[in-house]
Amino acid sequence: MTLPARPALRVGLIGHAFMGAAHSHAWRTAPRFFDLPLTPELTVLAGRDPAGVAAAAGRLGWADTETDWRRVLDRDDVDLVDICTPGHTHAEMAIAALAAGKHVLCEKPLANSVAEAEAMAEAAERAAGSGVRAMVGFTYRRVPAITLARQLVADGRLGQIRHVRAQYLQDWIADPAAPMSWRLEKDKAGSGALGDIGAHIVDLTQFITGQTLTGVSALLETFVSKRPLPASSGKLGGVGGEGMGEVTVDDAAVFLGRFTGGALGTFEATRFALGRKNAIRIEVNGSAGSLAFDFEDMNVLHFFDGGEPATTAGFRRIVVTEPEHPYVGAWWPAGHGLGYEHGFIHQVVDLVTALAAGEQPTPSFADGLQVQRVLAAVERSAADNSAFTEI
Amino acid sequence: MTLPARPALRVGLIGHAFMGAAHSHAWRTAPRFFDLPLTPELTVLAGRDPAGVAAAAGRLGWADTETDWRRVLDRDDVDLVDICTPGHTHAEMAIAALAAGKHVLCEKPLANSVAEAEAMAEAAERAAGSGVRAMVGFTYRRVPAITLARQLVADGRLGQIRHVRAQYLQDWIADPAAPMSWRLEKDKAGSGALGDIGAHIVDLTQFITGQTLTGVSALLETFVSKRPLPASSGKLGGVGGEGMGEVTVDDAAVFLGRFTGGALGTFEATRFALGRKNAIRIEVNGSAGSLAFDFEDMNVLHFFDGGEPATTAGFRRIVVTEPEHPYVGAWWPAGHGLGYEHGFIHQVVDLVTALAAGEQPTPSFADGLQVQRVLAAVERSAADNSAFTEI
Amino acid sequence: MTLPARPALRVGLIGHAFMGAAHSHAWRTAPRFFDLPLTPELTVLAGRDPAGVAAAAGRLGWADTETDWRRVLDRDDVDLVDICTPGHTHAEMAIAALAAGKHVLCEKPLANSVAEAEAMAEAAERAAGSGVRAMVGFTYRRVPAITLARQLVADGRLGQIRHVRAQYLQDWIADPAAPMSWRLEKDKAGSGALGDIGAHIVDLTQFITGQTLTGVSALLETFVSKRPLPASSGKLGGVGGEGMGEVTVDDAAVFLGRFTGGALGTFEATRFALGRKNAIRIEVNGSAGSLAFDFEDMNVLHFFDGGEPATTAGFRRIVVTEPEHPYVGAWWPAGHGLGYEHGFIHQVVDLVTALAAGEQPTPSFADGLQVQRVLAAVERSAADNSAFTEI
Amino acid sequence: MTLPARPALRVGLIGHAFMGAAHSHAWRTAPRFFDLPLTPELTVLAGRDPAGVAAAAGRLGWADTETDWRRVLDRDDVDLVDICTPGHTHAEMAIAALAAGKHVLCEKPLANSVAEAEAMAEAAERAAGSGVRAMVGFTYRRVPAITLARQLVADGRLGQIRHVRAQYLQDWIADPAAPMSWRLEKDKAGSGALGDIGAHIVDLTQFITGQTLTGVSALLETFVSKRPLPASSGKLGGVGGEGMGEVTVDDAAVFLGRFTGGALGTFEATRFALGRKNAIRIEVNGSAGSLAFDFEDMNVLHFFDGGEPATTAGFRRIVVTEPEHPYVGAWWPAGHGLGYEHGFIHQVVDLVTALAAGEQPTPSFADGLQVQRVLAAVERSAADNSAFTEI
Repeated sequence: MTLPARPALRVGLIGHAFMGAAHSHAWRTAPRFFDLPLTPELTVLAGRDPAGVAAAAGRLGWADTETDWRRVLDRDDVDLVDICTPGHTHAEMAIAALAAGKHVLCEKPLANSVAEAEAMAEAAERAAGSGVRAMVGFTYRRVPAITLARQLVADGRLGQIRHVRAQYLQDWIADPAAPMSWRLEKDKAGSGALGDIGAHIVDLTQFITGQTLTGVSALLETFVSKRPLPASSGKLGGVGGEGMGEVTVDDAAVFLGRFTGGALGTFEATRFALGRKNAIRIEVNGSAGSLAFDFEDMNVLHFFDGGEPATTAGFRRIVVTEPEHPYVGAWWPAGHGLGYEHGFIHQVVDLVTALAAGEQPTPSFADGLQVQRVLAAVERSAADNSAFTEI
Repeated sequence: MTLPARPALRVGLIGHAFMGAAHSHAWRTAPRFFDLPLTPELTVLAGRDPAGVAAAAGRLGWADTETDWRRVLDRDDVDLVDICTPGHTHAEMAIAALAAGKHVLCEKPLANSVAEAEAMAEAAERAAGSGVRAMVGFTYRRVPAITLARQLVADGRLGQIRHVRAQYLQDWIADPAAPMSWRLEKDKAGSGALGDIGAHIVDLTQFITGQTLTGVSALLETFVSKRPLPASSGKLGGVGGEGMGEVTVDDAAVFLGRFTGGALGTFEATRFALGRKNAIRIEVNGSAGSLAFDFEDMNVLHFFDGGEPATTAGFRRIVVTEPEHPYVGAWWPAGHGLGYEHGFIHQVVDLVTALAAGEQPTPSFADGLQVQRVLAAVERSAADNSAFTEI
Repeated sequence: MTLPARPALRVGLIGHAFMGAAHSHAWRTAPRFFDLPLTPELTVLAGRDPAGVAAAAGRLGWADTETDWRRVLDRDDVDLVDICTPGHTHAEMAIAALAAGKHVLCEKPLANSVAEAEAMAEAAERAAGSGVRAMVGFTYRRVPAITLARQLVADGRLGQIRHVRAQYLQDWIADPAAPMSWRLEKDKAGSGALGDIGAHIVDLTQFITGQTLTGVSALLETFVSKRPLPASSGKLGGVGGEGMGEVTVDDAAVFLGRFTGGALGTFEATRFALGRKNAIRIEVNGSAGSLAFDFEDMNVLHFFDGGEPATTAGFRRIVVTEPEHPYVGAWWPAGHGLGYEHGFIHQVVDLVTALAAGEQPTPSFADGLQVQRVLAAVERSAADNSAFTEI
Repeated sequence: MTLPARPALRVGLIGHAFMGAAHSHAWRTAPRFFDLPLTPELTVLAGRDPAGVAAAAGRLGWADTETDWRRVLDRDDVDLVDICTPGHTHAEMAIAALAAGKHVLCEKPLANSVAEAEAMAEAAERAAGSGVRAMVGFTYRRVPAITLARQLVADGRLGQIRHVRAQYLQDWIADPAAPMSWRLEKDKAGSGALGDIGAHIVDLTQFITGQTLTGVSALLETFVSKRPLPASSGKLGGVGGEGMGEVTVDDAAVFLGRFTGGALGTFEATRFALGRKNAIRIEVNGSAGSLAFDFEDMNVLHFFDGGEPATTAGFRRIVVTEPEHPYVGAWWPAGHGLGYEHGFIHQVVDLVTALAAGEQPTPSFADGLQVQRVLAAVERSAADNSAFTEI
């Protein structure tokens, strides 16, 4: 038996590590729970290592493989290219895919530099003229509690926004003995905590408030500047100091900001917050209400309604699992929570829906570029004695 | 490309409502994240309505359909029958499937009566002699935090168990205007909150403690005895009282119990706890440590280690998303939480693993029968002025 | 300088251990924060040991001492007798004090038996005829969050009550090596966890709901039947088994109950819940709303308003520190929480206010007797195979 | 009866508003629970309005009154002057009191400017030569959970500190219709949220970490620049715009900082965080452990021990009410929480103990000056385009 008859959306995915697995699951699963206007097909998976990509394709459910990502762009049986590789490869791949007339879903951060991101946004704008669409993958927007937060702000339940505070806390390199990785090398990762996780809280706070940051003041810090090379790196040790690699990105980024509507923002992204594994914490205070969210309790949104009488006012713990909540009606009965991967599935839903309607999916490459400009301003401010730096 | 070459496990699923969808997702998804010794195949889906079952099969990913469940048992291309229908049908289906030499996975509660459950357990025991296995679906055992709780008790971290308190709180019929449903009719559902959700906390507390209940003292209550018939029920109203149906099951069940090791238990199952959607709350206090769990925060287990100095002792909020935690290594990095449906996936993993090893999967039908006996003792006690009733 | 000119209320306090210190603090402090109609005077403190009572009186602020409690009743300069001694002494003292024309504040539980409590309630009723008042000290009623809970129920915010669940969890004798104490001897303490802490949750749930229990079904348990005699006990060990004392009270009590309005109740009182120090946890579910309270977070009340739209409904965390909240206006600005001792201060405020108005303070001895009858029914049920026992 | 025979410490208190009431309660109550080496006597209360100060003295327990604060300094029966007036009066009063040979306890912030604070610190240093002591009242240091946090850091349980995040969130002027007050006028209050509440989190984070801030980068914001004059202000309105007053202080302050040990700090102080009443939230992440505290749950400290195995690691919710915890042994049994006012009582305990021992109480005026320098650097940075500004 097959899914309801719908036109196909044939997908080519580049990359099959953590993000590739998450995207594959989303492409496979979205049409099982949502009635999509196009039916995704897992057409081809690209990866450099023939054995690796073949094994991954089998495990993840892809019909075919390529070992050169450019071949994916050449194929007539691919409608959309999904880019799940490290940031330094995004610009080339995305621009080429758009030029080849393929829709593009590109993982965040959009690129490793503003220049690259600008080129990508321009390519996306050009492509849009012929109905080819590009989207950047800030999936946390699709956690139902976050989407609900956006709706409450848009509905005016918070009034004028005064404060935004956002933290993205991890601890996976808090131990100085944790080994080197490409994520700690500037030429591959672009930046450290800033681009990897700071990008998410920049996007999320802008998404929830419907405002953008106008400037920032920042500090960057690298707590551990040298780390052991991983045993599997295959490098031969030389004389003296061999076996250690240099960390060339930030371990942590903290910054202040102002939003277009006048709110103050405080931001912190770090991989050294021992005991916090993936804590995305966002709070917004407005003149009429307040919100609080923590990804460690991802099915919950806290909402304070300033219109309540003092006697019974309090932050409400909204368990965001009701059929009335965003995306939730397609899933389980109330109280049966969702997990990390559902954001990716909802991303597929929104993307496919926009493509079928001939509309621009969000966040667009222009949105991704704007986040990139915030990250660049953070780096400039940090290099300029924390001076407030306009975006 | 295909999954790693493994022998197939060809599945026939009966029922395609809430549980059918959850099981289908699990069969589809388990081999994508876990390296299973057998590869599940979604061979056939059975349902009474031809159009309905065909649509469901397409959406849920089944290759074929049947409109008579007995036909599933006749098929040579089915190795395992998965029963996701209401409780009053379980006994007949499961016994027939085992007799036909099919492995069986049967949703909980095992049956609507002890007599049925006994017959099922006997059938399972007979079938085991020829290597045919039966398992009952208490999936919450496979929530990683619950599995970890079991491990901590088994490792002696709690010492001698003194207290068990368990609540399963929902609120979907708290409103007297909520309509009738088969779940409120004794001949179909067997019992109300007791069998539907009370069964889960009986199983979970016995699983975590490694002990069984020896007796109970109980109260049952039906708060709302008549409810409007649903508009879709198609029943014609007669003279007087038409349009209302009689609730013939319990709305809530509360009971005390004693465990084999001497612990006291308090239990509550209700669908009238306004504001609690699917709150499975379990606490265990022992001589050496304590545990607390709430399904509303399902990725967390709270553990108190009585050996800590008083100055720094406290309940630890363990975020059960580390690679070292049960089942978690197959999923996402630390801090990226799982959802309701993962319990079903883990159930498939354990079931398939046991089948491949020729071992008895747990919980067995004998385990399900034992839970049924507890539920029966609850009903007898409630009918006998709450007298303590042995199991 | 002196407090505002008010008639004096001259107090004689019997007992100067834990409760004596808490009451002394309340008598001293209440007029400093509340504008009382009578000014308490700490006239005399009674205790058996001359040196001990003299030291306590100095430290706690009492003007004079007596070593025989009967002497307090004889004094013309005493208007009210405050009884803070163990339960087996309450009846004699309170009845004599009332007969002597003194108002009485008596610590809970009112007595160690229903018979004693009945005699006390009768004495109180007689005394009331001549304007002499008696009150029992269930101070937790005066925690602002609890008082607010009562108000919300009285205002109809919960609708019809369906569920009450209450736990009083401590762990101070979870260790079998914890020594004997008078609190573990039936002839002094009357009962164990049941009367000591179970009495509080019986009173609190009845206070909050405005209903009384009509019957109970119970289990009692003594986990550790022998304990080492304390080094300071001065008892000479005999031959065999010397050095150990027998625990003659319950270590834990669990019971089910029905309330006058039809609600189901589940109760648990224990001193073996490792990691819980003084956790009084109360939840109430009604047809229109729900409440949750935990004394470990005593300045907070959680309230679910069933009238909220599903999208924004959730338990509100009310921080009960607003000027609009009960008792709070006399204290600090919003957000500056109160502690355990404030319940005692509020008790003084309510008692003094009632006395000045010539009204009956609550809870009365009749209320205390009713709690005693619940405790007795619990014991009868436990002795009668947990049979449901009317009160 | 009297307190144990001890030398007296005769106190003169200046000011009898919120802080005066809190200090009076502390002076009255400390010797009732702690065995102090000196017995505080509430000798004299000073206030400008004769009727007001007389009423306050009676209510708060002071023996005598003065209407000119200088008269308190002249009195031979005063050993210590306790200053509870607005910040712009601190320098003059404290310097004069020290010159008169009186010990001084001065509320925070130490002064409204660095120049004043420097003069005060110099005066304190001079006075110390003759055994006269000065202390500034950062009372939150004496919340037991905070003191415990300091101990854990000092004991090395956190390792090297990497992150400090601190927020002091209130909402009492979030409403633009909230009236003017002296706290919103720069010449009286010195600054707004920065000095009033920001000072506390600067002191607390430095106290807990045992480090000081070396520089800051800051933003200040005034969200509501004009507010209605209070009805009681007695000011005559002029022509045009009468009835509104100008807010000349910050409504909110956010800043980044670096600590001496290399940690990054993020700070936020605001009175516009709707729904947060007095939320002092502090988190510290180190290489070996982490801490989290929120004054909304003031009896709790969360501690993550990085040395725990991953399987059972988690933030421990330490209920800081054990006899082993700082200050707690003098109060109630475990689990019986303390309130806001206890910090002031513990402050008296520590101050009196230091005075009796002839030692410098902490925090000293030098400590208060250092905090003032941080606040000044925040203001300079905000005025200098957020440039990182050394302290």
